[in-house]
Amino acid sequence: MSNSNSKPWILNGFAMNVVGHISAGLWRHPQDQAFRYTELDHWIALAQLLEEGGFDTLFLADAVGPVDVYEGRPDAALRNGVQTPIDDPMLLVSGMAAATDHLGFGITVSTTYEQPFLLARKFTTLDHLTKGRIAWNIVTSALDSAARNLGLKQAIDHDERYNIAQEFLEVSYKLWEGSWEDGAVRNDRERGVFVDASKVHPIHHTGKYFQVRDANLSQPSVQRTPVLFQAGASSRGRTFAANNAEVVFLGGATAADIRNSIEKTREAAIAAGRSADSIRFITGATVITAATDAQAQAKYQEYLALADIEAALVLFSAWTGIDWSQYPLDHPLEYIETNAIRSALENFTRIDAEKRWTLGDIARYIGVGGLHPTFVGGPATVADALEQYAEESGVDGFNFAYAIKPGTFEDFVQYLSPELRKRGRIQPRPAQPQTLRERLQGQPQLRKDHPGRKWRTWESSEHQ
Amino acid sequence: MSNSNSKPWILNGFAMNVVGHISAGLWRHPQDQAFRYTELDHWIALAQLLEEGGFDTLFLADAVGPVDVYEGRPDAALRNGVQTPIDDPMLLVSGMAAATDHLGFGITVSTTYEQPFLLARKFTTLDHLTKGRIAWNIVTSALDSAARNLGLKQAIDHDERYNIAQEFLEVSYKLWEGSWEDGAVRNDRERGVFVDASKVHPIHHTGKYFQVRDANLSQPSVQRTPVLFQAGASSRGRTFAANNAEVVFLGGATAADIRNSIEKTREAAIAAGRSADSIRFITGATVITAATDAQAQAKYQEYLALADIEAALVLFSAWTGIDWSQYPLDHPLEYIETNAIRSALENFTRIDAEKRWTLGDIARYIGVGGLHPTFVGGPATVADALEQYAEESGVDGFNFAYAIKPGTFEDFVQYLSPELRKRGRIQPRPAQPQTLRERLQGQPQLRKDHPGRKWRTWESSEHQ
Repeated sequence: MSNSNSKPWILNGFAMNVVGHISAGLWRHPQDQAFRYTELDHWIALAQLLEEGGFDTLFLADAVGPVDVYEGRPDAALRNGVQTPIDDPMLLVSGMAAATDHLGFGITVSTTYEQPFLLARKFTTLDHLTKGRIAWNIVTSALDSAARNLGLKQAIDHDERYNIAQEFLEVSYKLWEGSWEDGAVRNDRERGVFVDASKVHPIHHTGKYFQVRDANLSQPSVQRTPVLFQAGASSRGRTFAANNAEVVFLGGATAADIRNSIEKTREAAIAAGRSADSIRFITGATVITAATDAQAQAKYQEYLALADIEAALVLFSAWTGIDWSQYPLDHPLEYIETNAIRSALENFTRIDAEKRWTLGDIARYIGVGGLHPTFVGGPATVADALEQYAEESGVDGFNFAYAIKPGTFEDFVQYLSPELRKRGRIQPRPAQPQTLRERLQGQPQLRKDHPGRKWRTWESSEHQ
Repeated sequence: MSNSNSKPWILNGFAMNVVGHISAGLWRHPQDQAFRYTELDHWIALAQLLEEGGFDTLFLADAVGPVDVYEGRPDAALRNGVQTPIDDPMLLVSGMAAATDHLGFGITVSTTYEQPFLLARKFTTLDHLTKGRIAWNIVTSALDSAARNLGLKQAIDHDERYNIAQEFLEVSYKLWEGSWEDGAVRNDRERGVFVDASKVHPIHHTGKYFQVRDANLSQPSVQRTPVLFQAGASSRGRTFAANNAEVVFLGGATAADIRNSIEKTREAAIAAGRSADSIRFITGATVITAATDAQAQAKYQEYLALADIEAALVLFSAWTGIDWSQYPLDHPLEYIETNAIRSALENFTRIDAEKRWTLGDIARYIGVGGLHPTFVGGPATVADALEQYAEESGVDGFNFAYAIKPGTFEDFVQYLSPELRKRGRIQPRPAQPQTLRERLQGQPQLRKDHPGRKWRTWESSEHQ
């Protein structure tokens, strides 16, 4: 399957500041070190490993409430370490940045519970400290369990969340792109001018959800706006992606479905005035690999045997919004007709669309790598399968999840990275560190056709 | 002045994620590197330097609005790099923590613009990553320039801010002290129990300002509650300190005034059920030192000559709430009768209480080290003066500000730290790293008499 026209993929390591992310109960594996998520050394070693293996980004998921749809309480999530407890992802970054030069950091932050004026400063601060290696994975927080701890009775409804998010991004662009001109920071000791104040502009934003008067508190970073990641395949989510995202994280029941989603998002981006190649697309996957196919299969069977049914149902309940503790394991899933489950199942039915799945089947499937497809085999086998999947679906890269941590990434780097390098799927390390956007989009700042650029009101046409 | 009963001081380095903190215009000094505040290496080197010099904590100030009382706009602050631009302090910490083992980090966060449920997770995350080296400097945000960027028309009034802060702390204690029992985290791979959910308790907080139902999202860190720092000498601030603070940062017109403030705060702490030694007190100071008194004086004169009048007036306007651009430099300050200026002046009049200060005098004074007293001399001279000042005022230690960065701290570590070590004023480095609270309060978690401990409702009397 190796393609002479092969171009490098976007390779992200996918993790969360928790014990158990999207695999179920595998923290009990003797080699699993995920319980060390509270230790800085654990994260630094992971970042160095990913950088060595040619990954572009460590993509950090987040949630700001406990996982508690299953049984209507967090007990099973706590018992199985399923995304509860959970620590803050953003605070890990400067520690990992100090020990790496090339790896990017994609950080999930919700627009529902932050102030844009303070979040702009946070992202600029991190972009400064990493010399431009930051991406923001924009989410809008659907969790009732977050809402009721943050002053709301329940989560704000879906479309309204996106309305808030769109205004949040508008404020953010004004702060990042509009409020400080290029060259505003002079650092001129002779004349005693640190900043040329005539090049710093209050934004005077007065909107439906936010009032923000001043310029960004932070001077611009090399990327200005962090690289904008977004997940979400709903119609409103797609409009939001078309207007904001540079990298979209999506799934689909089949490769053809993913391709269809990508095409629709591309059309929406073009309608928003952007070029067809302005957004890049990634999908989730888990790789279980070893020196040979047989060894990889043996490892996969070992993981499957440890995967925990209850932990998987906790995850499946969170993803579907349905309390699956109420149903027997032989419950046939195809008869449950809700949008929530159809959407959640889209990512797995490609494995065997003909099979009649029960709740128990899906719980066992989720065990290793969640609902994303799992690729098992030696280096050539997995690389072939990933290339086929990328070719059929049209994705530009992957968020690679782990079964055990850091073991799954160690195997990836040891066995698969050399094979992917050989096939041109890993971007060669540049002589000098570059920004994350240069790696992913070819230039350090937002492209000219990105809607965020229109807020550079200080930029006359001659500068463009 | 060396005292045979000398006990170690609390030694903090005092900084902010900005170019110019409390000295005025000294970023123009040829050796000043403060413009590198956006670079992680700059902060890591500073943290390592402070650790080498025996400092307990890097105390990071913050403000979440531009400095703009002077002329009613931020232009002069921007031009002179006076606390504007400003980056986030919290995001620096994991990078510095990775390069140090002993230094604590005191981080300023306002209770006015954060959600307690999310802030609890942030502090626990940092306390995890640093193995218990975190302090929270609690502030309540008086700045109109913050309020109008964060959804308010102007800052909430003083007493109401403290009412919010007190409920914020109550929620925080419930999350840190009350919601997770000791031993809740089992990490038992055999039984498949990561957390014993019966030992994790939703807090069900329903108050005037906050509604928070669930347990802390983070498992407890070694300190549980970060060490609680507080600045503020108002009557309401003193009540707040008595109920919450473990280290209070205060100033005063004379050493006797500081002693008086300390005594009043001690009385309030006793009234709140705490022992007389439960709170420790620090004050601000700047040290200009060198091998000899003459060299130190020469350095001080060099700094004074560079100090910028406009930058000093920007600071003085921010501290007093008065736009001093309206007044001539020969304006006599004693005739301006406002509480704001009296309070701001308290920190400096001790230098020469008989002198009739003009606006120009104070601007020149602020130039090096702001309104805090500046100690100039060789190691023995400065150590003598600090010991005298500590003896007279009764403080337990200092927040040491810089004139130039990192030069002022380099001089401190090179010249003064050996002298202070000789005099027993620097706590010897322990064989094993310890928590910040062990260094400052003798034990890793809140003392039994701290009001926050009463929220450990799971702790039966026999465990105490």
